[in-house]
Amino acid sequence: MKREICSLAFARAVCAEFVAMLIFVFIGLGSALHWKASVPAILQISLAFGLAIATLVQSLGHVSGAHINPAVTVAFLISSHISILRAFFYIIAQVLGAIVGAGILYAVAPTDVRGKLAVNTLSNNTTSGQGVTVELLLTFQLVLCIFASTDGRRNDSIGSPSLSIGLSVAVGHLLGIYFTGCSMNPARSFGPSVIIRDFKDHWVFWVGPLVGAILASLFYNYVLFPYQWSLKERLAILKGTYEPEEEMWERKSENKQSVELYSAQALPKNAEKLEKF
Amino acid sequence: MKREICSLAFARAVCAEFVAMLIFVFIGLGSALHWKASVPAILQISLAFGLAIATLVQSLGHVSGAHINPAVTVAFLISSHISILRAFFYIIAQVLGAIVGAGILYAVAPTDVRGKLAVNTLSNNTTSGQGVTVELLLTFQLVLCIFASTDGRRNDSIGSPSLSIGLSVAVGHLLGIYFTGCSMNPARSFGPSVIIRDFKDHWVFWVGPLVGAILASLFYNYVLFPYQWSLKERLAILKGTYEPEEEMWERKSENKQSVELYSAQALPKNAEKLEKF
Amino acid sequence: MKREICSLAFARAVCAEFVAMLIFVFIGLGSALHWKASVPAILQISLAFGLAIATLVQSLGHVSGAHINPAVTVAFLISSHISILRAFFYIIAQVLGAIVGAGILYAVAPTDVRGKLAVNTLSNNTTSGQGVTVELLLTFQLVLCIFASTDGRRNDSIGSPSLSIGLSVAVGHLLGIYFTGCSMNPARSFGPSVIIRDFKDHWVFWVGPLVGAILASLFYNYVLFPYQWSLKERLAILKGTYEPEEEMWERKSENKQSVELYSAQALPKNAEKLEKF
Amino acid sequence: MKREICSLAFARAVCAEFVAMLIFVFIGLGSALHWKASVPAILQISLAFGLAIATLVQSLGHVSGAHINPAVTVAFLISSHISILRAFFYIIAQVLGAIVGAGILYAVAPTDVRGKLAVNTLSNNTTSGQGVTVELLLTFQLVLCIFASTDGRRNDSIGSPSLSIGLSVAVGHLLGIYFTGCSMNPARSFGPSVIIRDFKDHWVFWVGPLVGAILASLFYNYVLFPYQWSLKERLAILKGTYEPEEEMWERKSENKQSVELYSAQALPKNAEKLEKF
Repeated sequence: MKREICSLAFARAVCAEFVAMLIFVFIGLGSALHWKASVPAILQISLAFGLAIATLVQSLGHVSGAHINPAVTVAFLISSHISILRAFFYIIAQVLGAIVGAGILYAVAPTDVRGKLAVNTLSNNTTSGQGVTVELLLTFQLVLCIFASTDGRRNDSIGSPSLSIGLSVAVGHLLGIYFTGCSMNPARSFGPSVIIRDFKDHWVFWVGPLVGAILASLFYNYVLFPYQWSLKERLAILKGTYEPEEEMWERKSENKQSVELYSAQALPKNAEKLEKF
Repeated sequence: MKREICSLAFARAVCAEFVAMLIFVFIGLGSALHWKASVPAILQISLAFGLAIATLVQSLGHVSGAHINPAVTVAFLISSHISILRAFFYIIAQVLGAIVGAGILYAVAPTDVRGKLAVNTLSNNTTSGQGVTVELLLTFQLVLCIFASTDGRRNDSIGSPSLSIGLSVAVGHLLGIYFTGCSMNPARSFGPSVIIRDFKDHWVFWVGPLVGAILASLFYNYVLFPYQWSLKERLAILKGTYEPEEEMWERKSENKQSVELYSAQALPKNAEKLEKF
Repeated sequence: MKREICSLAFARAVCAEFVAMLIFVFIGLGSALHWKASVPAILQISLAFGLAIATLVQSLGHVSGAHINPAVTVAFLISSHISILRAFFYIIAQVLGAIVGAGILYAVAPTDVRGKLAVNTLSNNTTSGQGVTVELLLTFQLVLCIFASTDGRRNDSIGSPSLSIGLSVAVGHLLGIYFTGCSMNPARSFGPSVIIRDFKDHWVFWVGPLVGAILASLFYNYVLFPYQWSLKERLAILKGTYEPEEEMWERKSENKQSVELYSAQALPKNAEKLEKF
Repeated sequence: MKREICSLAFARAVCAEFVAMLIFVFIGLGSALHWKASVPAILQISLAFGLAIATLVQSLGHVSGAHINPAVTVAFLISSHISILRAFFYIIAQVLGAIVGAGILYAVAPTDVRGKLAVNTLSNNTTSGQGVTVELLLTFQLVLCIFASTDGRRNDSIGSPSLSIGLSVAVGHLLGIYFTGCSMNPARSFGPSVIIRDFKDHWVFWVGPLVGAILASLFYNYVLFPYQWSLKERLAILKGTYEPEEEMWERKSENKQSVELYSAQALPKNAEKLEKF
C-alpha cells in the first residue's frame, strides 16, 4: 500500500495547479485593468475569466483535474473524491500560483493602468451579507456544473466539459462583477490582495465561495447522486491509499490503445447502480 | 405496476427543477438590473440568460431533463414523453423557483438598481399581437432545438446539447429583448411579476411561449419524426406507469460500467424505425 | 429504382429548409433593426446570425442537412452529394422562406425601427469588385467548414458540427458587416430585397457567395479529399436514384438501437480509402 | 522506406497551411480595421481572431494539423511530432499565406480604414521586455491547449478541439491587444509588416511566441506526459521516414468504415503507457 503522494503523477498534478492558477490570474486580472483607451466592458472581462478557465481545464484537466480554485478542491474533498493531502497541496499551489500570477501582472502592467489589480471588493451599496449571498449562489452553480460535467457515471452526451465549466465561470461574472467584482474563487481574490496589500472585506471571498462549494458538493454527491462507497473506501481515498480494483485489469489489457492519463480523481469505478425506488 | 411519482428519482427531479429555476431567474434577472456605472448591453444580458440555461442543463439535465420552463414541460407532455403528474409537479416547482429566485434577487440588490426586476413588458411601440408573435416564433426555435438535441434516436454528431440549448436561448434574447424583454418562458416572467406586483400584459408571456412550444412539439414529434408508440404505451407514459422492456435487460448486465442516471424522460427505446417511403 | 423525390423524407426535408430559412431571416434581420434605445453592435448582430444558424443546424440538420443557404445547396450539388431535383426544391424553399421571414418581420416590427430591414448593400467606399471578393472569401471559409464538419469519413474529434458552422457564420459577419452588411447567403439577401423592393447591387450577393461556395466545394471534395465514386454512382446521386448498398444490410440489423434519421445526404459509404502516395 | 515529402498528402497539407493562413490573416486583420462608423471593440476583435482559428482548425485540422502559426509548428517539431522538412515547408507556406492575406485585405479595404493594417506594435507604455513576457505567457497557454486538445492518448471527454483552440486564441487577445495588439503568431505579425513596410519592434513577435511555444512543448511532452519513443523512432519522425506499425494492420481491416484522413501528425501509436510511480 503506497501513498499517492509519493508518485510522480502527484507532483505533476500539484505543479499543474500552480501553473494553471498563475495563468488564470494573469489573464483574468489583466483583462480587467483600467486601460483608458478602451475600458474593458463587463462582458469582455466575464469572457476573459470564463474562457481562461475553459482553456486551462482543457489543457490540464487530465493532469490534476484542473480545480484552479480552493473552493473546488474543498468540494472534491467533501465528496471524498481526493485525499486530504492532495487537497492540502493543491490549495498551497493554487494560492502561490495566484500570488505569482498577480505579481507578474503587476511587473508587466504600465503604472497608469495597474489600478488595484482588479482586487475583489464590495461595490458601493452592497453589504457584506449581500456579497456573501451572491458569491455563495454563483459558486454553487459553478461547482454543480463541475461535478455534473466530470461525473464518470453519466452516459448521456456531455459535450465539452471544459467549455461548460468555463462558461459557468463566465455567467457568474456577468452578474457578480456588479456586486463584488466576482470572486467565486478565494485564491483569485487572495493573489492581488497580497500584491497590493488590501484585505478590505477579504473574508467575504473565502466564506461565500467555500460555503457555496460545500453545499453544491453535498447536494450533488449526497442528495442527487449518492455514491455507494463503503466507509472503508472513503477513508482510503481521503488517506490517499485507495487503489481501484480495475487497475489490475487495466494492466492486463495490452491492446488498450488510449492510455489513462487522468490520475487526479481516481474514482471507485465499481460504484453500484443508483437505487431507483 | 408502480407509479414513478413514488420514486426517489421523481422527488430529486422536482427538486432539481426548483433549484435550477431559482438560479436561472437569479442570474438572468440579476444580469439585467439597472447598474448606472455600466448599463448592461443587450448582448451581455442575452448571454447571461443563455449561458445560465447552458450551465443548468449541463448540471441537472440528467436529473430532471432540465426543462426549467413550463412551456418546455408542456411540450414534452404533448409529445407524451412525460407523465401528466410529472408535468404538474415540474410546473409547480418551476413557478415556485422563479418566485424565490426573484425574491432573493430583490433582497440582495441595492435599492437603486432594482428597477422593475427586469420584468417582461411590451416595448413602447409593440402591440400585444406583435409580442405574442415574437414570443411564439422564438419559443418555437428553442423547443425545436431541445427536441433535436435530446433525441435519443439520432446517431449523428450532436456535440454539446446543453450548449446548443443555451445558445438557442441567447439568440432568442438578441431579438426578443427589443420587443418584449424576451420571455420564451412563462415562469421567468411570472417570478418578478409576483415580487413587484406588476401583471401588465402578463398573459402575453404565457400564451406566446406555450403556443410556440406546442407547435414545435407537434412539428418535431408528429410531422418530422413520428414515434411508433402504441396508444397503450402513450397512455402508460402519461399515467406514469410506463416500464420500458429494456430495464430487465439492463438489470442483468452486471458489467455495465456507466450507470444510467437519466430518469426523467424514460423513452420507449424499442421505437421502430422511421418509415422511409 | 424509385426516386427520392417521391419519399416522405424528401417532403420533410424541403419543409425543414423552408421553416429554417424563415426563422433564420426573422432572427438575423430582426437583430439588426435600428432600435434607437440601444443600437445593436456589430458583435451582437454577428452572433445573432451565427447562433441562429448554429441552432437551426442542430435542430434540422438531421432532417434536410440544414443548408439554409442556396450557395451551400449548390456546393453540395457540385460535389454530387445531392440530386439536381433536391437542389432545385431546396433553393425554392429557401427563397420562399426568406421572403416569408422578412415579411413577418416587416409586419411585426414597429414602423420607426424597420429601416431597410437590414438589406445587404455595399458600404460607402466599397466597390462592387471589393464586395464580391469579400463575399467570396467569407463564403469559401463557411462552405469549407461545412464540408469538413459533416464529412462522414473523418474519425477524429469534430466536436459540435452545428456550433462550428454557426461560429463560422458569425466570424464572417464580424468582417463582412463593414463591407457589405455580410450576406454569404443569396436567399438572406433576396428576402428583404423583395419586401422593401430594393435590388441595388443585388447581383453581388448572388455572385460572391455562389462562386465562393463552388470553389470551396471543388477544393475540399476534389483536391483535398476526392471521393472514389464511379461516374455511374455520381449520376445516380444527381438523378436521385442512388441506393447505397448498406441499406440492405441495415434492414437486416434488427438490434440497431439508434435509428438513422439523416436522410438528406445519402453518401456512398463504400467510398474507398484515400490514396496516400 | 519512402519520404513523406514525396506524398500527395504532404502537398495537400502544405497547401492547406497556406490557404488557412491567408484566410486567418484576412479575417483577423480585417476585423480590426479603423471603421469610423463603428470602431471595433476589443471583444469583437478577439472573437474574430479566435473564431477564425476555430473555424480553420475544424476545416483543415485533418489535412495538415492546422498549425496556422510558425510557433505551433516549431512546438510540434520540438516534441518530434513532425519532420524537419514538414516544419520547414509549413513555415514557408504560413509566411507566404500571411503576406498574401494581408495583401488582399490591403487591396480590398477602402483607403480611409486601412490604417496600419492592424500590425502588431508595443502600446505606448509597454517596454519590449514586457511585450515579450506577455507574448510568451499567452503563447504558452495556447500551445498547451493545442497539445492537450489533440493528444491521442487521452480518453476523457475533450469536447471540440477546434473550439477549445479557437477560444484559447480569443482569450489571449482579450489581454494581449492592450499590450502589443496581440500576436502569439509570428506569421500573423509578419504579413502586415511586409505589406505596410513597418518592422518596428518586430522581433518581439518572433521571440515571445517562439519561446512560449517551445516552453509549452517541453512542459507538456517531456514533463507532464513524456512519450516512450526510442531515439530511433524520434529520428525517423524528424527525418520524415517514420512508418507506424499499425498501418499494415489498417490496410488489412477492410471493414473499417471511417477512413483515416489525418495524415499530418503520424504518431507512434504503440506509445507505451505512462509510468505511474
